[in-house]
This record gives sequence, structure tokens and C-alpha cells, in this order.
Amino acid sequence: MTTELSPYWLRDNCPCAECRDPRNGQKLFQITDLPQDLAIAARAELDGHLEVLWSDGHRSRYPSGWLAVEADGDGRTESDKRLWAAADFAHGVPEAHWEAYLADPAERAAVLAAVSRSGFAVLRGVPVRERQVLEVAQTFGYVRATNYGELFDVRVEPDPNNLAFTSAAIAPHTDNPYRDPVPTLQLLHCLENSATGGDSGLVDGFRAAALLREEAPEHFAALTRTPVPFVFRDRVSELRADRPLIEVDPLGRIREVRFNNRSIATLRGPAAELDAFYAAYRAFAAITLRPELRLDFRLDPGDCLIFDNTRLMHARTAFAQDGRRHLQGCYADVDSLASTLAVLHRRSAALDELEALFAGEGAGEYLGEAVTMAEHMLQAGALAEAAGAAPHLVAAALLHDVGHFQGALHGRDLMHGQDNRHSDTGADWLARWFGPEVTGPVRLHVAAKRYLCAVEPDYRARLSEASEYTLRVQGGPMSEQDAAAFAAHPGARDAVAVRRWDEQAKEAGAPVPDFAHFRPLLTSLMR
Amino acid sequence: MTTELSPYWLRDNCPCAECRDPRNGQKLFQITDLPQDLAIAARAELDGHLEVLWSDGHRSRYPSGWLAVEADGDGRTESDKRLWAAADFAHGVPEAHWEAYLADPAERAAVLAAVSRSGFAVLRGVPVRERQVLEVAQTFGYVRATNYGELFDVRVEPDPNNLAFTSAAIAPHTDNPYRDPVPTLQLLHCLENSATGGDSGLVDGFRAAALLREEAPEHFAALTRTPVPFVFRDRVSELRADRPLIEVDPLGRIREVRFNNRSIATLRGPAAELDAFYAAYRAFAAITLRPELRLDFRLDPGDCLIFDNTRLMHARTAFAQDGRRHLQGCYADVDSLASTLAVLHRRSAALDELEALFAGEGAGEYLGEAVTMAEHMLQAGALAEAAGAAPHLVAAALLHDVGHFQGALHGRDLMHGQDNRHSDTGADWLARWFGPEVTGPVRLHVAAKRYLCAVEPDYRARLSEASEYTLRVQGGPMSEQDAAAFAAHPGARDAVAVRRWDEQAKEAGAPVPDFAHFRPLLTSLMR
Repeated sequence: MTTELSPYWLRDNCPCAECRDPRNGQKLFQITDLPQDLAIAARAELDGHLEVLWSDGHRSRYPSGWLAVEADGDGRTESDKRLWAAADFAHGVPEAHWEAYLADPAERAAVLAAVSRSGFAVLRGVPVRERQVLEVAQTFGYVRATNYGELFDVRVEPDPNNLAFTSAAIAPHTDNPYRDPVPTLQLLHCLENSATGGDSGLVDGFRAAALLREEAPEHFAALTRTPVPFVFRDRVSELRADRPLIEVDPLGRIREVRFNNRSIATLRGPAAELDAFYAAYRAFAAITLRPELRLDFRLDPGDCLIFDNTRLMHARTAFAQDGRRHLQGCYADVDSLASTLAVLHRRSAALDELEALFAGEGAGEYLGEAVTMAEHMLQAGALAEAAGAAPHLVAAALLHDVGHFQGALHGRDLMHGQDNRHSDTGADWLARWFGPEVTGPVRLHVAAKRYLCAVEPDYRARLSEASEYTLRVQGGPMSEQDAAAFAAHPGARDAVAVRRWDEQAKEAGAPVPDFAHFRPLLTSLMR
Repeated sequence: MTTELSPYWLRDNCPCAECRDPRNGQKLFQITDLPQDLAIAARAELDGHLEVLWSDGHRSRYPSGWLAVEADGDGRTESDKRLWAAADFAHGVPEAHWEAYLADPAERAAVLAAVSRSGFAVLRGVPVRERQVLEVAQTFGYVRATNYGELFDVRVEPDPNNLAFTSAAIAPHTDNPYRDPVPTLQLLHCLENSATGGDSGLVDGFRAAALLREEAPEHFAALTRTPVPFVFRDRVSELRADRPLIEVDPLGRIREVRFNNRSIATLRGPAAELDAFYAAYRAFAAITLRPELRLDFRLDPGDCLIFDNTRLMHARTAFAQDGRRHLQGCYADVDSLASTLAVLHRRSAALDELEALFAGEGAGEYLGEAVTMAEHMLQAGALAEAAGAAPHLVAAALLHDVGHFQGALHGRDLMHGQDNRHSDTGADWLARWFGPEVTGPVRLHVAAKRYLCAVEPDYRARLSEASEYTLRVQGGPMSEQDAAAFAAHPGARDAVAVRRWDEQAKEAGAPVPDFAHFRPLLTSLMR
């Protein structure tokens, strides 16, 4: 196969450690550092890799699969969204309980994914207290302060500087279009809602824009090409941003919607262009008011609505002054939310990988013991759990031998006299996900065996045959001096505890929980 | 003249109080509230206004000049910038001293205007202490927290997650291109710089982009139409934004530049497109390295550089580890900076208006006194100043009679028996700009006269003839009960002080400072 390859593109993506920082993937050279007329001098497919020799002598090696990776996006355009109408939520809106959201990363990921895909989610049972909304925002990102403050109160105010602070109905709109950068996320936390009316409404602005494109492409085009001056002015602010109502990316995909009738200032231009814009604007506004697009629901005290302010339009019905209505809101940004979600997915993927290792390599023999490696480790985890050990010790017991899964050396090689330093290998590998409270005992579990053999003569006598054998390649019992030093190590106690479960966990046919049983505990320890 | 007018546009801009909130200019109707087939039923030019009768019966009235206002922009595209090369700052960079910046709004406006127009400014003499950079940002906006924290330290770190935290040279780049919204402003505050090297460089990215457009329009076009995946990934972040290197607004004007070689991830597409992009990218990168574009300077302790991160690229030279280099940085946004600048301009315009009133109406006679109104007020202000009074009292003394400048009633009418309530009129007018510490004594200065006449028999004897006359239309001396109530008022003391300067400030021919003398003091009191 001789695919046509773009030379500078290919070289810019060289994955070698000279070209990219292995820690963060940042490129270590400038594009201008590459020679003029860079060319591929030679190329070969070897061992599932494309090997390239460059005209300047550099060598690159790309996994063959990498070349064929499909383009994906940053998740911000319509192509990564689930466009919706109200009926799509007939069974209920994306929601989660606050406690579950905090405790369970899978629940947290589901909420953030809903905001990312559908543009919103509701948290229920969020403590009804002032400033709590800021804590909600901090679970996935950073609060964006504006002229309204770090947070703002939505309730009837005596001399309101904004329609929001009255009891009037508000048509679907996005907030702060006069800011650039516009706050991309909004949170509204209900503290009190005993008024008649005052329900919340949401409209998917991307869906409305897509409908406009379908029904009247010329109107859609007019809105994407006309920068509209949005203005807000009060005693201490004079904000202005000129942006189109519908913003598309360079490939023409809907990427942002700004829609706020109240703050559109005077557009200037020839009458014909103004006519075209106003016809398009009115058509788009009419679509946003279609009942089938509008999802109405009521926020009760403790509910916190999180939504994408570059996509969803929010509205509220008028309310009577027969009761009180008080929301606290704040702004944040979707980039941090997407990052938090990606890290949660990465963690979940890491656990998937671990689970696959237990099911795959883990099913192999364990240094001649009567149990497989996976059985051994699951038994060790279960023993720690049964002993009421702290979660980090259960995790360390469960994972103490992952070093055996890694690298080219397998258990049998160790039995043949090579110490593969599996305790270090395992601890290093786990350090990508777990803190020292988990990796410490893993790293020290071989040393703990040598220590126990030195200080507890009975202990050595109880070692399995295989373990007695490996003790020798691991260095034998510690000297008195080494044992004293080990005992003084702050992690010695945890390492010894894990070691004892390790020795016990070799019972053939003992019933063990499966890996999935330990996932919530592991997830809670991942950082 | 029958200009062609776009009906919906015209109606959407109706300035009447039914259509717009007079307090903040927010529109009070939805575009969809307007009838289909809205038309102008009748129009007429009257009294410098266009009067319109609409087909639905509404009437609008537009100042004729408003129709002809030229389109302006939000200040964010190349058309509102001063594009530069290094030689343009041969005489020095835009800078100000921190104390002057804080004390003098004109200095503050000049610094913010430089950031807005040239993309940067340097504050000198900023206190060398940790976290001070956050205070600098708060003088014009809000800090934007990121994964690097609320602020970040730029110094050599043991295990850096970013090239910034090493001593290596860094080529011109913008920060955080993997964020969307990208932080639009960056601040770098130098706390220590004793290393050899480590100088700062700036390149005007708009200028570089404009040069690319001039020299190779096809490259410019390729960069504006290609969304580039920018990625940053570390233990707790996974950020990605797909944006073009050069972003233009719908009218094709350069609006943002993102340029950061380190974080460009793998672009996908047909080889021909990748070739086109890489040719353009390399050409643009080469332009950013032209020596004539690069402005180099050294940040010394106490210097704080503020720059537009959507436009300017920043760089630094490598530095030796022979000394220490420590900057603290933070991000903020240009929308708030522009708002702060606009409010400063608005205040300055208000002082211009006051100055014009002193020079115009103020030159008129003052109720039959031997001085003009302006002389009287300037004398009162000067007397307060000479007495060492607090700034708010100097301002109140200077402005106590501005009520005479306002409305249809003039001093002569008051002399003819009408009390024009000039103390209230003046205080209300001043309240747009000044707090109660200034408006209070203005509001009470007539009451203070009636009070003093009640409690100090000598005082009344010293009144000028005109003042004795107006005392009657103002209600005469206070009753004992009213005087006691007045004395108990928390603002009585200040009002009485102003009143005494008022009475003394009627000396014909006395030398007075001009209005300009009082501007810095007035500006410092404006909110």
C-alpha cells in the first residue's frame, strides 16, 4: 500500500520523544525548524508500523492504524449534538440526584455528557442554600464572573437593570450576547418557587437554526453573514459585541447561536440588506416560538439547571406575586466541562483496560500456584474488603500484581530466574491513575515479603512453594539493618497488610467477586 | 428627502419609552410581536425629527441625525486596531506608572485604549508581591481561572507540564488555543528577573495575518477555512478546540489569531488539503519570525504586561540559570476591558459637558450678584480647597449651583418669584456621576441657608441682597422644629460647610482657578 501522504503533515505528527513531550504530547519543535523541501526519502511497512526515513535524516515510526484514524471534532458543532424537540423528553429530562452525582463518577459523566450532547441537564436535591450554585459549577469547571457578579439572583427587584429581575414572561433567548467571549454555560439553582407561574422553558437553538436552514436557506445564510451589534449599558457597564445570530464554523456547521431581542442595538447598512436581515430574523424568531420545540418544566427548590448558553435558549413564563421565586445563577464555560467529561471517560477507559487484563492475561497461570493471577488478585482484594480495610488498601490488594500483566516478561520468566521488578512496574503503571496511597503498598509488596521473612520466622514457613522460589530471585530475607530501615518507612504498615492478604489469596476454587464489583471503589480513588 | 427605509429595521429601533427601557436601552417587545406586513402609513420631517405613523397605529419619532449615523464596530476586528511593527515603538512602548494609573482616570483610559488599539501596554512600579497580578486584572475586569489556576507562576519547575515552566526559548505564540472560549487577555507580572536572557517579545498577529493576506492570499484563505485541532492533555485536563489559525468575521475582517505550534494535534483530511494547510501554516509561521515584526523588551520586577491573547503573540528568549526569573500571570477578558474603557470615556464626556456649561451658561449673570455663576461656583470650590476640605466637599462646593444650568428656568425667573428647586435639580443631575457624598450637600445647600438664618441671626445679616430676596421664595428661615430636624440630619454638617463657602463666593474680580483645575479631583470621585 502506498498511500499518498502529505510530508509536512506527516512529519509534524512524528510521535518520537524528540518531537513530542511524552508527558503532555506538546510538540518540541517549530514548524519553521523543518527544512524547505522536506521529503520522504524511504518508507516501509514493518511490524504494523509505517517507518519513514526523512530527507533530513530524521526517522519516524507511526502505528499503521494511526494513519487511518477518522477525523473527529471538538464536540462543539451540530455534528456532535443530539438536536431535539420537546417530545424527545416526554419520558423525562436528563437528570441526576446531587448526592449520586458527587459520589458516582459514572453518574457525573452521564450528566456532563447530557449537557454536552443535549445542551442541558438538571441536578435534583442540590442543597438549598445561598452560593451553592458556585459549588455546582466547581464540580466541572470555573465560574465566570460578569458585571452581574460572581453569581446573580433572579428575583423581583425594586429597580431592575434587566427584565430578568421582574416578574414578566421572558421569551426564549441566550444570555449576555453583548459579551465576547460570551459565557458558554449557565447554571440556575432554584432556592424558592412558590409563585403561580414562573415555569422554565428551553428551546434547542441548534434545532431551530437547522429548521431555518431547511425551510429557508436564504434566511439562514443572511443570519450567518450578518454581524449584529448586541449592546448592554448601565451605570457601570458598556458592553458590545458584533456577532451573527447563527455562527457556523469554517465548514458551515452550526457552532453557536446568540439570540436576545432585548439587546440588539441598531444594525446599519443599505435598506435592502436590512430588509433581508429582518425577514430572516423574524423567521428565526418565529421558529423559536413553535410550541413543539419548547420544553417546559418547573424548577423546584433544590433543582439546578445546567445548560449550554451558546446553544439552548431559555425562557420563563410570567409569575404572580402570590408567592416568592428566587433562583441563583452563575456562568461557567463548556471547555472545562468537556475536559472534565473527557478525563472521566479516560478513567473509565483505564478501568475497562484493567478489567480486560484481569479477563485476559489474568486468566493465565500464576507462577505455578493453584489459582490464576486474576483469581489471586481478586481474592486478595476480597480478603482486604472482608477485613474492613480502607478503600486504598482494598485497591492495593486487588492491584498488587498488575506488574505481572505488563511488559514482555511474563510470570514464567520470573520463575526462570529473572526478577522482572513487577512491584515497581505495576506501581509506575498505576501511578497514571492512583495516588501514592494505592501505589505505595504495590511498590513495597515484594519488599514486605522479604521483611516479613526476616522478622517472622513462622511467616517464611507458610510461603507457598512458588513464593519460596521467587524469594530467592527477589534477594532473600532482608538483613537486620534493611529490615529496621523498612520498618521505619511510613508505608511499611500498609505494605505489610497487603502482603499478608497476598499470601492468603492462593486458595484454589475459593469464590471471588468479579472485577466489576470493585469498580466503584476504584473509581472513587482515581484522580 | 424620502430616504428608502427598511420598515422592520426602523420599527425595531423606535426609541419611545414603550419600546425601550429608558434606563438601559433594552427592548421591551419581541420582533415577533410586530404585525405581518408592517408598513409606514405616513412619515414627515418635523423639527429635526422623522415622525412615522405605522400601519398598526404606533407612532415613532427619530432624531434626523440618528438615521445617518455611520456603522461602527465592536472594536474587535482589524479595522479598529492599529497594526504595528517593532519600529513603531522605537520611542517606547505604551506604559504608565501604577500609582498614576490608579489615581488618574485619564491615565487609566490611555492604558486600556493602548491594549484595545495596539494590543498591549505595560504598567510600571506595580507592587512586587504575590497575587498582585489579580488586583491588576480587577482594575478593568474579571480573572478567568483555567486548569493552570486562578493565577500561574512562570518559572523553572522540576516536572513541568508545559514548556513555559522551563528555561527554554519560546517562539511567538498565543496561549490556551485549546480553550474555547480562549482567554482573550493575558497579564504577566514580573516579580524577579535576574537571569541572563529571558527577555519578552511581542508580535502583532493581526499584522502578520494581514501580511500573509497581502503576500499570499491563497495561504490566508487556507488558514481561515481550516479548523485546526488544538489539544492539551495532562493528568487532570483534556482540552480540545477546533478553530482556524486566523479567524475572520462574516465580513472577512481579521478578528482572532490562534497560533501555538506546541498544541496543534493531528489535522485530518485528504493529502492535498493537508499540503495546502501546511504550506500556508509554514508561510504564516515564517512571517511571525520576521525580526522587524518582533518587539523585544525586558520585564523588570514591578512591570506588568497586559496583552490581547486573541491578537498578539508573545515569546521569550532562553535564559541562563545564573539568576532567577519569576513571573506571575493570569487571564482575563477584553470585553470587560472595553466596557471599563467606554465607561471612562463616558465620564470624561460628562466632565466635558460640565466644563462647557461653566464656559457657556455659567458666564451669565448670577441672580444680580457682582459675579457670574461660573465665577461664583469656581470661587466656592477654591474656598473649599483652600480650607483643606475633603475632595467630596470641594466638588460639592464647585457644583452646588449646577441646578441653575438645567431646564428651562433661568436665574432671572427665580428672582421673579419662582423657586426652581435648583438644589434638587442639580443633585439629581449630578447623581448620574457622583455618589451621595457629593450630591447630598448640593441637595441640602438651600435648606442649609434656611437653617443658618434660623439659628445664627448674624448669618442672615450677612446675606447679599439677592440671597436675602431668594430666601423668601425658598420658604424663609426654618421653624425651630425644622431646624432641629435639619441639625439631626447626618448630612447637615457637610451642607452647612458648603453653604458658608457659597455665601463667601461672591467677590467681584477675585482670581479663580479654571474648571480644568478641578477635573482630576472630580474624576476621582466619579463612579
